[in-house]
Amino acid sequence: MKNDRAIGVFDSGVGGLTVVRSLMERLPSENIIYFGDTARVPYGIKSVDTINRYASQITEFLLKRDVKLLIVACNTMAAVAYQTIKDLSDVPVLEVIEASAHNAVRQSRAKVIGVIGTPATINSNAYARAIRHCDKTIKIYSQACPLFVPLVEEGLFEHEATNLIAREYLKPLMAEKIDTLVLGCTHYPLLKPLLQDIAGPEVTLIDSAQAMADIAADLIAKQKIANDGNDHPDYLFCVSDVPYRFQAIGEKFLGRKFDRVEVVNL
Amino acid sequence: MKNDRAIGVFDSGVGGLTVVRSLMERLPSENIIYFGDTARVPYGIKSVDTINRYASQITEFLLKRDVKLLIVACNTMAAVAYQTIKDLSDVPVLEVIEASAHNAVRQSRAKVIGVIGTPATINSNAYARAIRHCDKTIKIYSQACPLFVPLVEEGLFEHEATNLIAREYLKPLMAEKIDTLVLGCTHYPLLKPLLQDIAGPEVTLIDSAQAMADIAADLIAKQKIANDGNDHPDYLFCVSDVPYRFQAIGEKFLGRKFDRVEVVNL
Repeated sequence: MKNDRAIGVFDSGVGGLTVVRSLMERLPSENIIYFGDTARVPYGIKSVDTINRYASQITEFLLKRDVKLLIVACNTMAAVAYQTIKDLSDVPVLEVIEASAHNAVRQSRAKVIGVIGTPATINSNAYARAIRHCDKTIKIYSQACPLFVPLVEEGLFEHEATNLIAREYLKPLMAEKIDTLVLGCTHYPLLKPLLQDIAGPEVTLIDSAQAMADIAADLIAKQKIANDGNDHPDYLFCVSDVPYRFQAIGEKFLGRKFDRVEVVNL
Repeated sequence: MKNDRAIGVFDSGVGGLTVVRSLMERLPSENIIYFGDTARVPYGIKSVDTINRYASQITEFLLKRDVKLLIVACNTMAAVAYQTIKDLSDVPVLEVIEASAHNAVRQSRAKVIGVIGTPATINSNAYARAIRHCDKTIKIYSQACPLFVPLVEEGLFEHEATNLIAREYLKPLMAEKIDTLVLGCTHYPLLKPLLQDIAGPEVTLIDSAQAMADIAADLIAKQKIANDGNDHPDYLFCVSDVPYRFQAIGEKFLGRKFDRVEVVNL
């Protein structure tokens, strides 16, 4: 059990790079292998069967690369394929939903929480289950936002069209007077300023990337698998396709340049 | 060489059903097998390599089903993978781009044509080549419209957000005083009223679905492979996934209910 093995992070595309960014800040001596399924993104509108099949392929790929910990950055895979991934893995598996749910419950004073995500994530009810597991008395209102992923991938973070669509998506949640809004998709942090503006300053936005880095740090400390004293961490970015505008959009999510990019056909 | 073999039509998702709809009207005695790669849609933002790989898999699948003719309904595949598909096929292959290009050249009086499509289609320059092949004197202005596919898949045909985005996409084309606009993606016919409204009544919109059905009818007549006297044509719809809202959106494109849907993992 060597501690210099990498953390494996995976996502349906580039959105999970927000999680990698938080991990790099929180755990600067850890090696990281990222897999983004850029050939088959988006997952959020696919069926449960297909999402499970693709999630298995990615899990097997990362396990072969000898990772010490798997992080499911994609909310959609976490919501519908977590058990499949766990069953395949002989290393710990962390996923974003539990992390964000805990965080949301801790933040909410009014005990009225809104959750936004892809159709697959919202239809799975995974957030509602995870939040109720923390606190049964909390009221939860969910809204699928199928257009946010393509709008973010186009870089329209502050565009009037995005604003119009976001106002429609958030309207039913605001009517329920939520005080906390879970951004249940790794793409959504890039819409934070717009969403905060629509929701108003009294609503706390919960970003899964940071919550994820915190629980990863806890687990690594508890299991004593930290890669201490590594000043030159290795970052490898594997993708199933190098699509249109990949570099520009990916680096926007990651907040820095890619070190090494490898194309892998699953 | 039996004439009751089906016509094989394929697309990256549900958009190609607009072509099937035109074929059903134009060639009512022909059997049709459709393949829509709904698990991996959209293609328009993927790399050329990945599009070619996926197109080969679909071509092989349809050839195994013993089709007499292949129709590449997807503009993106036609633009970047036509040669690959043709090399694999021992039956005739028709694709939308040539059909639409001919049609556009015939319609344009001012000889200034606009083309809209996915990033992959526009970057391939396939429309510009096909149009210049018909008439070297024509001026061509192209615009990639990456958000139209997700907006159409969400059913936002007349939404103000779609209107805002469409105005931005069409602005540079309108500035060049185009008199003909090629809808270079099978999803776009559902935006026709909105696009006509923005472009104005003096611009002719070219819809690839009808052009496609016309050239298919020509080829079937010329090659004497018509399935004459068949009063009960067989329609089979194969898809790689049954995603979120598939039935509702698919039937909107097809203009009628699905007969048989089969899920195929490629």
